[in-house]
Amino acid sequence: MDTTGTIVAPATAPGGALTVIRVSGPDAIALCDGIFRGPGGPLAEAKGYTLHWGHIVDGRTAEVAGRVAGDGGETASVDDRATECRLPVADGQTVVDEVLVSVFRAPRSYTGEDMVEISCHGSAYIRSEVVRLLVGRGARMAQAGEFTVRAFLAGKMDLSQAEAVADTVAAEDRAAHALALSQMRGGYSSRFAALREELVGLTSLLELELDFSQEDVEFADRKQLLHTVLQITGHVGELLSSFTLGNAIKEGVGVAIVGRPNVGKSTLLNRLVRDERALVSEIAGTTRDVIEERLVIDGVTFRFSDTAGIRPSDDRLERMGIERTFASLRKASVVLLICEPDIAPATLQHDIEELGLQPGQKLCVVINKTDLLAAAASAGCGERASRRASQALAVPFSAPVAPAVAPGCPVLAISAKTGAGVEELKAFLSRQIDMDMVLRGDAVVSSARHYEALQHAAVALERVRTGLESGLPADLLSQDLRDALHHIGTITGAITTDEILEEIFSKFCIGK
Amino acid sequence: MDTTGTIVAPATAPGGALTVIRVSGPDAIALCDGIFRGPGGPLAEAKGYTLHWGHIVDGRTAEVAGRVAGDGGETASVDDRATECRLPVADGQTVVDEVLVSVFRAPRSYTGEDMVEISCHGSAYIRSEVVRLLVGRGARMAQAGEFTVRAFLAGKMDLSQAEAVADTVAAEDRAAHALALSQMRGGYSSRFAALREELVGLTSLLELELDFSQEDVEFADRKQLLHTVLQITGHVGELLSSFTLGNAIKEGVGVAIVGRPNVGKSTLLNRLVRDERALVSEIAGTTRDVIEERLVIDGVTFRFSDTAGIRPSDDRLERMGIERTFASLRKASVVLLICEPDIAPATLQHDIEELGLQPGQKLCVVINKTDLLAAAASAGCGERASRRASQALAVPFSAPVAPAVAPGCPVLAISAKTGAGVEELKAFLSRQIDMDMVLRGDAVVSSARHYEALQHAAVALERVRTGLESGLPADLLSQDLRDALHHIGTITGAITTDEILEEIFSKFCIGK
Repeated sequence: MDTTGTIVAPATAPGGALTVIRVSGPDAIALCDGIFRGPGGPLAEAKGYTLHWGHIVDGRTAEVAGRVAGDGGETASVDDRATECRLPVADGQTVVDEVLVSVFRAPRSYTGEDMVEISCHGSAYIRSEVVRLLVGRGARMAQAGEFTVRAFLAGKMDLSQAEAVADTVAAEDRAAHALALSQMRGGYSSRFAALREELVGLTSLLELELDFSQEDVEFADRKQLLHTVLQITGHVGELLSSFTLGNAIKEGVGVAIVGRPNVGKSTLLNRLVRDERALVSEIAGTTRDVIEERLVIDGVTFRFSDTAGIRPSDDRLERMGIERTFASLRKASVVLLICEPDIAPATLQHDIEELGLQPGQKLCVVINKTDLLAAAASAGCGERASRRASQALAVPFSAPVAPAVAPGCPVLAISAKTGAGVEELKAFLSRQIDMDMVLRGDAVVSSARHYEALQHAAVALERVRTGLESGLPADLLSQDLRDALHHIGTITGAITTDEILEEIFSKFCIGK
Repeated sequence: MDTTGTIVAPATAPGGALTVIRVSGPDAIALCDGIFRGPGGPLAEAKGYTLHWGHIVDGRTAEVAGRVAGDGGETASVDDRATECRLPVADGQTVVDEVLVSVFRAPRSYTGEDMVEISCHGSAYIRSEVVRLLVGRGARMAQAGEFTVRAFLAGKMDLSQAEAVADTVAAEDRAAHALALSQMRGGYSSRFAALREELVGLTSLLELELDFSQEDVEFADRKQLLHTVLQITGHVGELLSSFTLGNAIKEGVGVAIVGRPNVGKSTLLNRLVRDERALVSEIAGTTRDVIEERLVIDGVTFRFSDTAGIRPSDDRLERMGIERTFASLRKASVVLLICEPDIAPATLQHDIEELGLQPGQKLCVVINKTDLLAAAASAGCGERASRRASQALAVPFSAPVAPAVAPGCPVLAISAKTGAGVEELKAFLSRQIDMDMVLRGDAVVSSARHYEALQHAAVALERVRTGLESGLPADLLSQDLRDALHHIGTITGAITTDEILEEIFSKFCIGK
């Protein structure tokens, strides 16, 4: 990526009443002066953080302007209009738009360079025309994320903050936004800076020994070193485990709705998203494909997947559906096992085992069709019995079933058909996400790149630990420590390569 | 339309790196101070035309913030983060975004009121959150065009200029943009102001007579009056006739491609737009529907309609297609009559008459398939003859056919198949639009509303003329003059009604 020169790009989406065009680089102000005419005089004399009203003019020569007019005729006498509107527009220039221009002087700008933001009318023509004029004068169209690359290179933010800028723009719910913003604002970075500092301290202690390697001294108490390594490993572990939360917030929490055929899985999904997305019928095995719906609960996005009912089947299509169910189940953070009210505890236990849940996946048993139960009670047993049945349904079914089957596994009673208990189900889901951790500004890893770097660091630290325990010499220990340092460094950009930069910033939108 | 209170709306389209949110009204600055925290202190102390960096904060109380966190847990300790980032964010507030805020003070703003423009990150969440916070503090969501309504009411622009703002945003080519911008910048308005002035002078002269009606005097020389009325009528006529140009530029110039079946109309359209939009085959009568394509030539949009071939037909579908051809022909500004190279002058004359062109419609006879001619010449007559045939094709066919058929009607020879002559055809089309008139800043009427008002004014002026000639008394003449004045007045908004305002501004986008 070429990091010199002056770049230009629209920073707002096409359409709308306004377009903002960003220009950044050593010639930003001079280039804009070539196409801007304002009563306040040239922008070259403007201070940073100032606003200027004026016009963008097309300074093509009279000859060219005449040719564009179509007939090879003479140039429009712009002079008259210019006088009329009291505008300092010279001969042979046409006005492109009335604009507001913001001037920023290095280093007090987003990129740390001289910057100009041109706020013009939102027409596609003006948008392309202003960019074209600036490119014609020597600016270059910015690539995706190039403004933020410059901010990073100028030391305005570290790499993890720059990545959070893209996440902030992409955030669609409260949780993802809070997470990205907290990372962008630097709390996250300082956690890694602290980690690096500990590692650097450790490494320098060991490397001091190397300088005196002839004398076979040990400056660093090995027990103390081990203690510090374990502490750092603990911190890395914490960060690694926060990725489950961070990833769920960034990508949405995967919730698999599973169960035997015809227990009402699709009805529940419909109830949750309140439209007829999933096909519902009374024929068992209706759902063959995995259907996914997104729903924001308390600011967090949940991705519900409605799956094919699990049962032995000879139907090839249905078997394929069931296979997909298991694939979807393996990716889910939360699994809702739906069953009928009359399910036998042994059957339930068998069904839960069959799910083959991984550690970290959360299970909730959802007893559906409680409306049938209430109806049965009401029809068979008169008013008093009916009231008693309703009361029983008001509290979760946990008492009779849950402890016997899966200790600690929550059980909820709902009726997907009437909506009873569905709010409680949503509240349960909401509790699975530790929003407090995000709101507190704790470092939560949400980037797969950071997660991978942390994993590498953890492996290196593990080598340091075993090395310390087996009395490995300082130079080998130091090599592993440097390895860990390197991986932590790539997260904030203390260590960068062109490859890392290109991969990160290619995900940005143009103009950022 | 309620024109009081403080309004808010995003002024940029959803998506993109940045969103600009506009706030205008008496409380604009105070409302923004409620959600903005910057190192420079409150915006209330800021001067107009200044830029401020800072944060948008959500000032909900601790209790509410805690509830939103999902668990009823305690509030995030934002204090720590605030200190860390050296930000004046108080207890119980969460940061929504880092922003740049532009402050404008009445009357130096777009609307003429106090205004704030908040430039924040372009995420859908932040966008809705900032608007929500401001609405929560008493701002109202702006309706379409409401910012410009306020600019009009504050006298920052007249009605025709306000309408041109919407046209400027919508302009997609150079011509439409130049026209809208010239209208927005006021040259157009001043033409109408001059017209009104002349009418007001005339009216007051006549109404002076009314004050002395008992004495039967004539202050105004009737001959002089008639002269002035004719002059004004002439000006109105000029403006009325400019609507053909203005409408063509705004809506695109309608070009009907007509001719007998199988002369290559669809092939020409395909050649022009260079894709396979129209279905081409060797079976005569392939095109049944009218196909329309847009193409920008020299900054002007042309709307080409490829029509069904005109011939007597028993096929019901084909007859319907031919009827549509005539409908499309009636709406076109330019008609391209395509024919074969061997067409007899008498046949051509018959075909031209059958088109039944209206005054103002421009005809061009296009001789297609010149490639066949060249091939025939080459095959039959040896090299020299072939060269001669090619030379003949290089100049338009006008000499042999045109003068005999339609004097002054241009004739072009092309090959839609090879592309020969197509550039000349485009150049011919481009010459049909008087871009000079637009570039010169002449008043060109492009709004159907203005055209209608001018028509009403012309009718009233015609009544004044006949009244003057037949010696009508001053009070009746004056009434007709006032009628003309009224209609001219509605164009710039010297006379407005709520209906006019609502109709005009409902076409705007939100945020403008």
